[in-house]
Amino acid sequence: MNQFTFSLQATDGHARLSRFDTPHGPISMPAFAPVGTLANVKTLEPRDLHELNATLVLSNTYHLYLRPGHELVERMGGLHQFMGWDGPMLTDSGGYQVFSLAHRRSLDDDGVTFRSHLDGSSHRFTPERVMEIEQALGADIAMVLDECAEPLEREYNEAALIRTHRWAERCRAAHTKADQALFGIVQGGIFPDLRLQSAAFLTELDFPGYAVGGLAVGETKEQMYTTLDETCPALPADKPRYLMGVGAPEDIVEAVYRGIDFFDSVLPTRIARNGALLTRDGRLNIRNQRFAEDQRPIAEDCTCYTCRTFSRAYLRHLFKAKEITGLRLATIHNLHFMLGLMEEIRTAIRGGTFADFRADFHDRHTITDQAVRHAQRQKRAASAAKR
Amino acid sequence: MNQFTFSLQATDGHARLSRFDTPHGPISMPAFAPVGTLANVKTLEPRDLHELNATLVLSNTYHLYLRPGHELVERMGGLHQFMGWDGPMLTDSGGYQVFSLAHRRSLDDDGVTFRSHLDGSSHRFTPERVMEIEQALGADIAMVLDECAEPLEREYNEAALIRTHRWAERCRAAHTKADQALFGIVQGGIFPDLRLQSAAFLTELDFPGYAVGGLAVGETKEQMYTTLDETCPALPADKPRYLMGVGAPEDIVEAVYRGIDFFDSVLPTRIARNGALLTRDGRLNIRNQRFAEDQRPIAEDCTCYTCRTFSRAYLRHLFKAKEITGLRLATIHNLHFMLGLMEEIRTAIRGGTFADFRADFHDRHTITDQAVRHAQRQKRAASAAKR
Repeated sequence: MNQFTFSLQATDGHARLSRFDTPHGPISMPAFAPVGTLANVKTLEPRDLHELNATLVLSNTYHLYLRPGHELVERMGGLHQFMGWDGPMLTDSGGYQVFSLAHRRSLDDDGVTFRSHLDGSSHRFTPERVMEIEQALGADIAMVLDECAEPLEREYNEAALIRTHRWAERCRAAHTKADQALFGIVQGGIFPDLRLQSAAFLTELDFPGYAVGGLAVGETKEQMYTTLDETCPALPADKPRYLMGVGAPEDIVEAVYRGIDFFDSVLPTRIARNGALLTRDGRLNIRNQRFAEDQRPIAEDCTCYTCRTFSRAYLRHLFKAKEITGLRLATIHNLHFMLGLMEEIRTAIRGGTFADFRADFHDRHTITDQAVRHAQRQKRAASAAKR
Repeated sequence: MNQFTFSLQATDGHARLSRFDTPHGPISMPAFAPVGTLANVKTLEPRDLHELNATLVLSNTYHLYLRPGHELVERMGGLHQFMGWDGPMLTDSGGYQVFSLAHRRSLDDDGVTFRSHLDGSSHRFTPERVMEIEQALGADIAMVLDECAEPLEREYNEAALIRTHRWAERCRAAHTKADQALFGIVQGGIFPDLRLQSAAFLTELDFPGYAVGGLAVGETKEQMYTTLDETCPALPADKPRYLMGVGAPEDIVEAVYRGIDFFDSVLPTRIARNGALLTRDGRLNIRNQRFAEDQRPIAEDCTCYTCRTFSRAYLRHLFKAKEITGLRLATIHNLHFMLGLMEEIRTAIRGGTFADFRADFHDRHTITDQAVRHAQRQKRAASAAKR
């Protein structure tokens, strides 16, 4: 019996309502996966994730490999048991972190040697080694090792794609864990012909799911959307489609519109810890002086614990006083917002009203110029760090 | 109708089982009050405190006066509404913080001028000013302003006691809030005659409750216990007795044995954030290498969320990786331990078996030499900082 069944339940334009079954339960899609980098969604516990109706949780292979080590996690019964999360889990391959976070990368066709960002120790990832690590961690979904190229550079992408495809084949061959689904990752930067070539190559390898990688790391939003316009139709309709590392609400709405099924991103949890709170109207910085005596909740219509219990004035006080509880209450709110957004998206697709939902969403959701500039700076920095 | 009723339910030797009614509900005593310095028990939420069966919560007047300001808290509906805690609350007078935390103290008979430890701004506390601040905060129990003297210095204590008594009179006169009980504070260091003099003076003022102040800040455990031996019998039997700032489990057992009814301390929450976990056998430092692959919970018989859900190996990983969730899970465990200890103490007094409980507790509870040395260093540092 196949433990990984993808069921397409409804479509609305290119948007898809679906269900992906895993050994740890079903994922209703479109879905958003909170990121628990070190086997823990920062400031939260598994009971919080259940209360927030999270289904899929991501954890980072690069980080867990370095600390506490995949072999320790395996001896402790695997990632689920170790962190006390009984729902579906996904591990990335660590490729992105090797290129964005590790020091002194040295890439060859066989793999990549790097130094730990923690202690400078030397390590080597090959496709076979990464499969060994991800299988030891034991998530429901594992990702192939890929090379995450600068999305705007044609020659870099051409060379990287050859390696990425060879590595995908090697991962496919090395992966033997029956209760873990290995997903392929389509690369090719912003170049339509490379994306199509990658989609075709990986489809031949017949993965149980496909990710679109290498986006939201340096290109404009328009370039990202255009790339999705071109890539999604080339992916098999009967497999889940995963847009990696994308978490801005407006990008999620646009990606679902183009046929993406699920997402992960540190965005809602990371900006929460900076005091940026997500609302239907855009982001609100709770540190702002204008909230000092504001007795309203973050959002009047929000049903999360934070909004049911505390005023903006109190949350601002916690942030100004650097109280840890503030980070947690903001994280709860932002994840509630994201997971609620996904629920609304699924309802709209089911009802055939996703086009209206999308238009209404953008009418109301404003991103301040400051937020846009900040996001652009972050992207440029991430892109520069990768090279 | 008096909203503050003290009912003595049983005694066992000097140990007392009692109930103190407040406008926000009853406190079963002996009780331990977690400390929420800045209107928040660090890393926790009100729902956690309810789950832990906390009753009384303390908050610090000095800190709240500086940030966000007592007037803001009052405009937000008072401390209870501001922080979302609907149970009994107590505020200290800020006196201890002025002497231990603030900069450039200048003391005179009328009050004390000091500089904020946050921004160096100048402030002045007088008995009347502190009553204004505590009444604005609106806790169920407020404390008089006192001078916290170095407990071993006779002359200092003699002079301080005169001021402390005069300030207690002025606080009594300035306090008018009917739904708030103002407690007196007995001082006098380790000197029996001064303690008796202080108890007699304050009893004349007829406060609804009495604290023993100025202990656990530099003297030995034996000196603290002896002081309690001498002070408790001099306090009115029909009023609650509060030992301020004491939170080591062995000290609580000894103080209950001598007739103390309730306690507050940052100890369980502060040491939790350092990875020191309380168990019946003593303290366990979760960062220790020997827990790296320990699949057991912190304590086998503990029923807290942390112990029900996570292994020592996982908690150690969270602490080593500096994950905020680790601080929270440790805090939950330590408060569960303290509040559970108080429940066991109440049960023992009710059953007339407190002497056995005390003997069993000390047989099992060992404090490592390292922990003792660390505690001694902290006391010396606190004592030095005060002078």
